[in-house]
Amino acid sequence: MPASPTRADCSARDAADPLRDLPARFVPGEAGTLYFDANSVGAMPLAARANLARIEGEWQRLRRRGWSESDWLAAPARLGAKLAPILGAGADEVIVCDTTSLNLFKTLAAAVALRPGRHTIVSEAATFPTDLYVAQGLARFRGGVTLRLLQEGEPIEAAIDGDTIALYLSQVDYRSARRLDIHALTRAAHDKGALAIWDLSHGAGAVPGDLDAAGVDLAVGCGYKYLCGGPGAPAWIFAARRLHDAIVPALAGWMGHADTFAFPLDYAPAPGMARFLVGTPAVIANAAMEAACDIWASVDPHAVFAKHAALGDLLIALVDEGAAGPGVGVASPRDAAQRGGFVALRHEGGAALVAALGEAGIVSSFRPPDSIRFGLSALTHRYVEIFDAATRLGEIVASGRWRDPKYRKGKSI
Amino acid sequence: MPASPTRADCSARDAADPLRDLPARFVPGEAGTLYFDANSVGAMPLAARANLARIEGEWQRLRRRGWSESDWLAAPARLGAKLAPILGAGADEVIVCDTTSLNLFKTLAAAVALRPGRHTIVSEAATFPTDLYVAQGLARFRGGVTLRLLQEGEPIEAAIDGDTIALYLSQVDYRSARRLDIHALTRAAHDKGALAIWDLSHGAGAVPGDLDAAGVDLAVGCGYKYLCGGPGAPAWIFAARRLHDAIVPALAGWMGHADTFAFPLDYAPAPGMARFLVGTPAVIANAAMEAACDIWASVDPHAVFAKHAALGDLLIALVDEGAAGPGVGVASPRDAAQRGGFVALRHEGGAALVAALGEAGIVSSFRPPDSIRFGLSALTHRYVEIFDAATRLGEIVASGRWRDPKYRKGKSI
Repeated sequence: MPASPTRADCSARDAADPLRDLPARFVPGEAGTLYFDANSVGAMPLAARANLARIEGEWQRLRRRGWSESDWLAAPARLGAKLAPILGAGADEVIVCDTTSLNLFKTLAAAVALRPGRHTIVSEAATFPTDLYVAQGLARFRGGVTLRLLQEGEPIEAAIDGDTIALYLSQVDYRSARRLDIHALTRAAHDKGALAIWDLSHGAGAVPGDLDAAGVDLAVGCGYKYLCGGPGAPAWIFAARRLHDAIVPALAGWMGHADTFAFPLDYAPAPGMARFLVGTPAVIANAAMEAACDIWASVDPHAVFAKHAALGDLLIALVDEGAAGPGVGVASPRDAAQRGGFVALRHEGGAALVAALGEAGIVSSFRPPDSIRFGLSALTHRYVEIFDAATRLGEIVASGRWRDPKYRKGKSI
Repeated sequence: MPASPTRADCSARDAADPLRDLPARFVPGEAGTLYFDANSVGAMPLAARANLARIEGEWQRLRRRGWSESDWLAAPARLGAKLAPILGAGADEVIVCDTTSLNLFKTLAAAVALRPGRHTIVSEAATFPTDLYVAQGLARFRGGVTLRLLQEGEPIEAAIDGDTIALYLSQVDYRSARRLDIHALTRAAHDKGALAIWDLSHGAGAVPGDLDAAGVDLAVGCGYKYLCGGPGAPAWIFAARRLHDAIVPALAGWMGHADTFAFPLDYAPAPGMARFLVGTPAVIANAAMEAACDIWASVDPHAVFAKHAALGDLLIALVDEGAAGPGVGVASPRDAAQRGGFVALRHEGGAALVAALGEAGIVSSFRPPDSIRFGLSALTHRYVEIFDAATRLGEIVASGRWRDPKYRKGKSI
């Protein structure tokens, strides 16, 4: 076992960090508060302010002329191209629009149409709930489609067969941060002629997406977590280039039309990913999101993933050494290659401990039944912050003050 | 024929206007520019700046705690309730979310499920194109649903029969501003057991929606036109209270779940309109939109509709008197009760005239084949602006400079 990391060790790592200048590209949070909520709302890029101010000015001055004289309509594709490298995708394979849930519907509807004669969507009970609701809603409306949910421990590969439309999974378990192997599972889906659809919400911006390398067919992800696009930011959707021409969207709208401003009566899909657009782009939200996309486009994805793994490894090492206090355990995989964007800890205090932590200036989040989640960001976190958080957590746990009844409730998202 | 209105007449009307203080609640546009594009991007409420600044602060300071400590999650219902009076709806019948196109899909999917055994959606070729694309996409994906499009002049009532799922119409023709009779047509749909679905995008905030009074079943509308919610603002969706419990959304997601944060595996619709929510609310976009909703909640809808009609009547009177120059005709209904949010003029210059007008500081828009649209806003327009626009238009038409080849192109939305 290596010696326990000291605060000085962490400072030294920060000084040597090739990404050490990135935190300065974000607005600092509340003084004294440590934010471990990149899994929920990532930090605010400094440039988001300027971008929002620019859009306010265009709204005021240009009004409708913004559609033609500014870059409002081009934003979805432009933002998608900027995100593509961190997702392991081609610039023409990602577009930013709508919400994760709506984009999931688009992927499933596309898969159903691409695999006529097949009837089953294979997923896990561990998949994020909204993903399951989307599939249930689609199955109810469409008919002829069944959602098969695997329980923990059931082998996924064995559930895929000739009736499988798509394997439909969250890359990262939203409670434990367990990360599935996108490469192996996508191959397993393809081996049976099924499509592979991945929700990368709890991975994108933290761990490799590898969408092209893994041969993924369709994927989606959240814009407001690790990607730092702002609360409720537009989501993204990916489709492998080889599929573009074959997909005629079920959610068809004017912004996905091949010739929107000719106003023909019949729908014809736009070339490429633009066909996944439906309604008018969210101009203001896209402006905030673009500040984040510009940062993503400027970083080396490998450096981001390496630092992200190291941050998690450090937190786990500190917990193992007892820095986080007695009774605190690690609920996430210890192997960074099997872990997503956060580290889940476990302690009898559960949600009450998260509430007590919050009062002490450590923002984390709880997920039933027992996950205390620390969302990590390679863009904004310094190693010393991990050290300080573990130490502060240790003090709170040792103090026992999380047992105060006032900490017993709390809503989380 | 009454005497031609003078500029002094218009000033007098402004001085007596019960809504005369409303323009001061909006950010002034470019000096010297007259904006007639409320049919595309409405003016920016002053409070939008403060609202956006507040959300920037919450993003920076609260991060994920905004979900529980701020009002982010409550925004869709809160904004809907504020819009309801101008739509003629109950506060619990409107929710703000997603885009017009996506909300159209929700209404159609609900209608299909509410009318099993029926197969036809009746609409018009004059319906806004995205509405048609949404229906086409849904019909293709679902199967067993046919879109019947009526051509101009075909009587709508006669097309509704026992196989009609829904009458699915734009309240206002996006080229001519012709307004359909929501009351009569909704009754005609109900007489045959069909539902009535209305897209109020080119009417809401300008002319009566009368959703409850007319017995409308489902409706949607755009947030960024007359409603002034900002470019690409979230849209709204309405469902009559009597239908809420019977609708299980096809676009199902966690924000429409009855118990979102319990994370159950199975979808169960939230009570009331919340079931129409799908993904995470667009927090930043909602903040801008709320500034407009607050204005709508503060005005007397009847005063707004009366002024809107008067603005259009004034423009038409000025055109008829020749103030807008020779060869300029009125393409919209002369009866305000049959007209939507804009007045369409007609002139041989068409799109080139719109471009020349733009250069002269009059923002209007063109729709093929020949509609020169002047979007009017009872919240922001003064009568003298109508007078000045007509006069300036008259000078440009008379000058013939719109014939310059440089005006021959231009994209519009």
